[in-house]
Amino acid sequence: MTAPTVSPAPVAPALRPRRDAELPSRFTRSAAARTGLVRDTADVHSWLEERRRAHRFRVDRIPFTELDGWSFDPRTGNLGHRSGKFFTVEGLRVATSTDGREQRWHQPIIRQPEVGILGILVKEFDGVLHFLMQAKMEPGNRNLLQVSPTVQATRSNYTKAHKGADVRYVEYFTDPRRGRVLADVLQSEHGSWFFRKSNRNMLVEAIGDVPEHDDFRWLTLGQIGELLLQDNVINMDARTVLACAPFPDAEGVSLHSDTALRSWFTTERARHDVSAERVPLAGLPGWVRGEHSIDHEEGRYFGVVAVGVHAGSREVASWTQPLFEPKGEGVTAFLTRRIGGVPHLLVHARVEGGFLDTVELGPTVQYTPSNYAHLPPAERPRFLDLVLGADPARIRYEALHSEEGGRFLNAESRYLFVDTDEDQAPLEAPPGYLWATTGQLTALLRHNHYLNVQARTLLSCLTSGAVRL
Amino acid sequence: MTAPTVSPAPVAPALRPRRDAELPSRFTRSAAARTGLVRDTADVHSWLEERRRAHRFRVDRIPFTELDGWSFDPRTGNLGHRSGKFFTVEGLRVATSTDGREQRWHQPIIRQPEVGILGILVKEFDGVLHFLMQAKMEPGNRNLLQVSPTVQATRSNYTKAHKGADVRYVEYFTDPRRGRVLADVLQSEHGSWFFRKSNRNMLVEAIGDVPEHDDFRWLTLGQIGELLLQDNVINMDARTVLACAPFPDAEGVSLHSDTALRSWFTTERARHDVSAERVPLAGLPGWVRGEHSIDHEEGRYFGVVAVGVHAGSREVASWTQPLFEPKGEGVTAFLTRRIGGVPHLLVHARVEGGFLDTVELGPTVQYTPSNYAHLPPAERPRFLDLVLGADPARIRYEALHSEEGGRFLNAESRYLFVDTDEDQAPLEAPPGYLWATTGQLTALLRHNHYLNVQARTLLSCLTSGAVRL
Repeated sequence: MTAPTVSPAPVAPALRPRRDAELPSRFTRSAAARTGLVRDTADVHSWLEERRRAHRFRVDRIPFTELDGWSFDPRTGNLGHRSGKFFTVEGLRVATSTDGREQRWHQPIIRQPEVGILGILVKEFDGVLHFLMQAKMEPGNRNLLQVSPTVQATRSNYTKAHKGADVRYVEYFTDPRRGRVLADVLQSEHGSWFFRKSNRNMLVEAIGDVPEHDDFRWLTLGQIGELLLQDNVINMDARTVLACAPFPDAEGVSLHSDTALRSWFTTERARHDVSAERVPLAGLPGWVRGEHSIDHEEGRYFGVVAVGVHAGSREVASWTQPLFEPKGEGVTAFLTRRIGGVPHLLVHARVEGGFLDTVELGPTVQYTPSNYAHLPPAERPRFLDLVLGADPARIRYEALHSEEGGRFLNAESRYLFVDTDEDQAPLEAPPGYLWATTGQLTALLRHNHYLNVQARTLLSCLTSGAVRL
Repeated sequence: MTAPTVSPAPVAPALRPRRDAELPSRFTRSAAARTGLVRDTADVHSWLEERRRAHRFRVDRIPFTELDGWSFDPRTGNLGHRSGKFFTVEGLRVATSTDGREQRWHQPIIRQPEVGILGILVKEFDGVLHFLMQAKMEPGNRNLLQVSPTVQATRSNYTKAHKGADVRYVEYFTDPRRGRVLADVLQSEHGSWFFRKSNRNMLVEAIGDVPEHDDFRWLTLGQIGELLLQDNVINMDARTVLACAPFPDAEGVSLHSDTALRSWFTTERARHDVSAERVPLAGLPGWVRGEHSIDHEEGRYFGVVAVGVHAGSREVASWTQPLFEPKGEGVTAFLTRRIGGVPHLLVHARVEGGFLDTVELGPTVQYTPSNYAHLPPAERPRFLDLVLGADPARIRYEALHSEEGGRFLNAESRYLFVDTDEDQAPLEAPPGYLWATTGQLTALLRHNHYLNVQARTLLSCLTSGAVRL
């Protein structure tokens, strides 16, 4: 008698659920944790102070003639680097048409067609997700050093156009075997200053042990949320990545259904015609090039300037580069309302000349007030005066944050959530505005190019638990 | 004693569920219905025949000099209409770089920056959703008349650049009070022939009675599915809208999670650098302009030609226009596999010069074989020969369909689903390819610019129930 023949079981490929139902609650648990591997946020400040001392770092304004490797093209006047890498400053001619109303302008714009990586490495310690944050110097930040993502790298960075050191931890974001991707999406940067710039926003959960380094600390989401209550601690790159974190929406109800929200967005994209053509920076109408800066003839908007940087902690020790410097502090705010008990935010479909596709959703208010100071009240941007004059009891959040310090000098905005009522901000919102819940907006952040970078800063205050509406 | 004072109940604004959980099953029910207001598909053919007789329609090739209102710009050589409306034919210079491998080419391209509406009106009769389909003539279709969406209108159409009649039923798609939006999303058209063209794809459920017209019939989704099994009956515009219909995914499992699928898509977008610059059509390298056509010097790809049209059922009675005419029939196919019992499709991240953002997901195979006939087998496009030589027993679907007959002349492709195994198409797919379920791909179709128009044609065969994998 022979042994019975057993056919081998067919090797069933492992199917998995399309969605990880546990993930939002793991983030919620981390957002609730104010203590972790680092005891508290005071310890974060000690660490930042210590890193500030460890690295010498100085930024000086210089005339364009002292830029090293950068020059104005003799034909186009565009400002670029001799390697052809990094970015160029060019001219942009924008024409928009909305319901028959036309606008035209010229402006300098940063062109950097490559896609960079903004990535935060995530790992569970004692049952709580921690986020590996970097103390990073950026020349444009007023306080120079801020808390940044684990990796913040242009492709030039990590392919070494810098001729500098490797980017630490970048392998977790370029090699899928090193971790599990929790979020990975292309998002726009400032459409008023960049021409069609996107970066990958990534959250990756590390597999195995992660080597440590003095410039990095594991923080809970709740600790990052606490730091977001303070001025100029969490940098822009960290904020935009954190906005893309999962956010639980147990109730799943809203004033407008998801389909209605997306249909309104589609209507807004189709309602605006935007033509944005690159033109030479030389002779750009309305802009004047001096020795130290390129400025608008009326002194508004922003200038293009140059700086020299001496640093110890950067990939290379010293360099020069152009930066954009806005004229005045910005004000960026979501108006909020509880509708049927559920918090809603008033989003604004905004045209910015550098967007890939006509409009993205921004906060209710996103302006530099000094650019509008000369206008009569009736022509000032909608809802701006409501935010500037808000009753302090209605302000649910207020902090000053910097935009990306690698491209922008002293670009600070006051970020706010302001609670409103029907008289101030009706449910039947004006054209171009719509009420949506945090759950709806964070769901859109799983996809490209719905929400602009300013909206993402404010949403990071919600995903991190800095604000509970 | 006075009557008790009753405070009025606060008017609670009506919140609604973010998602309509009933909608997918309503579409499924319609996809199962092979009979409805129209008894069967034979009656659809009688109606089409009758409309064909009712409308005279003739298309003649003409030399460019006989185009009326269209001319080549003396400076750029671009072909446009004197009104500045409709579209222009311009030159495009494309340079792509993928993992260090570079490609460059020039080609004519259609530029039509305005966003059109492709809309199907939906209404329930006897508990079953019906779709209001139009018998519509288009000059580029070999059989001229096909089944089209309720509304298929460029903005020039419905703002009357044509000086023609109003577009019937367009108010349901432009006035939100006339119906309930079920889908509304911007989707790309052919990235090889159009420069960054998007149309709104809309499904709107009508509120109230809908007036009838001889050129229109209410069909169930199942009836449309039956017609999709036949060659050249359902036009491209109808197919792309139907692809955006909700599709139930009860199992909710897949080889790769939704996050992994989106991360792969992000990787593919970031992996390819694509520069596409508009250049003058005059002197476009590799292309020759004759009296009747503009052709590639090796006779490949497509030509630009001109036609004169005489019609009765169009918004205007007769006109002339340019069309693109491909050289040879295309082959467009999804390879499929059941993985763990769940059907999967092999999607391909494709670069096309006219895409808004580097890549979109296409079918596994999308080629015009004659363009590659001169190449040795090793250099032929991946999976093409597998589809061309497929065992008929493995072909789950095969039909010939036309691309948009308002812009393309005799642009026909053979559309297929071909079942495969591990030897032919491994689960560990080659770079640029990934296995995904129908549920995953139709979920992406709620958002802009994930799936190209050829993939959408094939997905419409699944949402309509023409094919069950």
